[in-house]
Amino acid sequence: MGAPRLIATYAVRADAGSIDARAQALALEQSVELPLKAVHDARIREEFVARVDAIDACDDRFEVRLALATATVGRDAGQLMNMLFGNSSLHDDVELVDVALPPELAATFGGPRFGIEGWRAATGAVGRPLTCSALKPLGLGPDALAALAGALARGGIDVIKDDHGLADQASAPFDERVAAIQRAIAAANRATGGRTIYAPSVTGDLDAMRAQARFAHDAGAGAILVAPMVGGVSSLAALARDAGVPILAHPSLAGAARIAPPLLLGKLFRLFGADATIFPNAGGRFGYSRETCAAIVRAARDPWSNLRPALPVPAGGMSVEQVPAMRSTFGDDAMLLIGGDLLAAGNALESRCRAFVAAVRESAEVA
Amino acid sequence: MGAPRLIATYAVRADAGSIDARAQALALEQSVELPLKAVHDARIREEFVARVDAIDACDDRFEVRLALATATVGRDAGQLMNMLFGNSSLHDDVELVDVALPPELAATFGGPRFGIEGWRAATGAVGRPLTCSALKPLGLGPDALAALAGALARGGIDVIKDDHGLADQASAPFDERVAAIQRAIAAANRATGGRTIYAPSVTGDLDAMRAQARFAHDAGAGAILVAPMVGGVSSLAALARDAGVPILAHPSLAGAARIAPPLLLGKLFRLFGADATIFPNAGGRFGYSRETCAAIVRAARDPWSNLRPALPVPAGGMSVEQVPAMRSTFGDDAMLLIGGDLLAAGNALESRCRAFVAAVRESAEVA
Repeated sequence: MGAPRLIATYAVRADAGSIDARAQALALEQSVELPLKAVHDARIREEFVARVDAIDACDDRFEVRLALATATVGRDAGQLMNMLFGNSSLHDDVELVDVALPPELAATFGGPRFGIEGWRAATGAVGRPLTCSALKPLGLGPDALAALAGALARGGIDVIKDDHGLADQASAPFDERVAAIQRAIAAANRATGGRTIYAPSVTGDLDAMRAQARFAHDAGAGAILVAPMVGGVSSLAALARDAGVPILAHPSLAGAARIAPPLLLGKLFRLFGADATIFPNAGGRFGYSRETCAAIVRAARDPWSNLRPALPVPAGGMSVEQVPAMRSTFGDDAMLLIGGDLLAAGNALESRCRAFVAAVRESAEVA
Repeated sequence: MGAPRLIATYAVRADAGSIDARAQALALEQSVELPLKAVHDARIREEFVARVDAIDACDDRFEVRLALATATVGRDAGQLMNMLFGNSSLHDDVELVDVALPPELAATFGGPRFGIEGWRAATGAVGRPLTCSALKPLGLGPDALAALAGALARGGIDVIKDDHGLADQASAPFDERVAAIQRAIAAANRATGGRTIYAPSVTGDLDAMRAQARFAHDAGAGAILVAPMVGGVSSLAALARDAGVPILAHPSLAGAARIAPPLLLGKLFRLFGADATIFPNAGGRFGYSRETCAAIVRAARDPWSNLRPALPVPAGGMSVEQVPAMRSTFGDDAMLLIGGDLLAAGNALESRCRAFVAAVRESAEVA
């Protein structure tokens, strides 16, 4: 049968009379991008043209499984996205739902370099979900952000991330901000004996992201935040190779209506090296269902090839009151991210953090 | 009123009773990402929180115009995408439709470095649309691709692009392929006195793209092909700064159902430095309407700040028979891209190219 293939699954809206032709067109679009009659070489038809493996009716759509030649992908994350959904993303009738990779291809990308275990080692958080909050609003200067970070750290938050809107703006230039925030967190850690780590948002082209990651590492930041659909999945993969700290993936610009969120935010971001992945949890301000969220969590954590599990990070309008429900839903291997609900507390920020931390410690995991 | 703002327009599905609250939530999501009660600093409310400028009923949706602070964007292409649609891309009820930038911000990005005029200077094509075809299928080796390129060049095609699926695969490694193809095109140019140029597809992370662009330039290739939604818009912007040749943008992974195609493929790719932009033309194998295509063309070509116009490239299943209609629709300032219809001709490839070239020369522009 030749080299192993990767299996891509699509949900396609079509009627029963046209689905065979639509599936065949999808197979051509995602491989040779030519009508079959224009493929004159028998070896290419055999080895490179994608094969329709299965078509199953599924609710009001059809599930189409294609077998794509791994030789078309090479070793680049962007090229994998390209072969999975490049041109077909322009068609309204198709959603990319899932992918299965041969183990050698998964090993090529390498997945999380630290994974769940790495987050626990870095923060000392064991036997419970991790806690996370965000530095915002954008517009605050380095000192105000550092003061906020100090309060969150004294309040016992495990991971403090930049708002993904914080880039290298004049209001809080990256180097100045990161140095000030990391100093505040280190001071809080010394005062409390805590092990809070900081994940600054690295942005820009790969040169800029790399320079920022290096600066953050040298300043003592224990993690970084990356938005792979903004910076490019190839940039995520490059950073994973040499960041030296765990990477937290942000779903910005994921436009996930066209690539199934469990695949994009769970599986693919994990594949390319995210150690934790933020997703908009059900019951918050985004419209993901409980089923979608559960599927994201499985994609991030379940055994997959030899890749480390990544830490799922439910977020997007969560409150302290939702902690017991989140722990019962997601168990211990999760990082709970609460931003606005803590930051709205103003002067009571530290005590609101402590309430968050206590809720996490006290909530029993319900299997 | 403070610093100039950029105006982002969204189409939002909501009922009349909830649209005011939805627009306000959108403004917060795309700026401070906090409830207003958690923004304690009056200066930040004033200078950084996005403002709802207008809400207009428009067909079955509402058009919402937000004024975003330019200070939130900085100078990075990815960060502009992030502030325009980052988190909101995760909401099903909203589409990003358009953006208007203060001239200083447009100048920061710089747009096409060569533009329509640069394509004409490079190829000598004047007074008519340019012609373009693609090297495929993926799976062919360097020699077979070079033979194909030679035939297309002898047939008189202006711009020969790699299939966007060609990356750095073992079947046709980038350096080997580009050298062989450029040699074949140069030989054809010497034989015919033609000025065909080659646009190899540069892929991977920015390091890889840059190394490939440099190799292509040194080998004599006259352009490059970039897929900005695969490689990242920041990578496009970085390449535009120093590629030294015109850049052709490919719509792969644009998933344009959630960002209006005229904005993404027309305006934003132009803003970040694409000299030409490929789009799936109406009447081909993608579902874009004539109105959408006309709007993409306007976004690419119309006067906009001080940015050069970019060349619109209708594509996606076009045939030689459609040339007169395309010329009448798009006029002279276009590049017509025909791939499969030429490549299906097999041994008659050169004569089919000549028919394409003749159709372009002979079709009169209908205003």
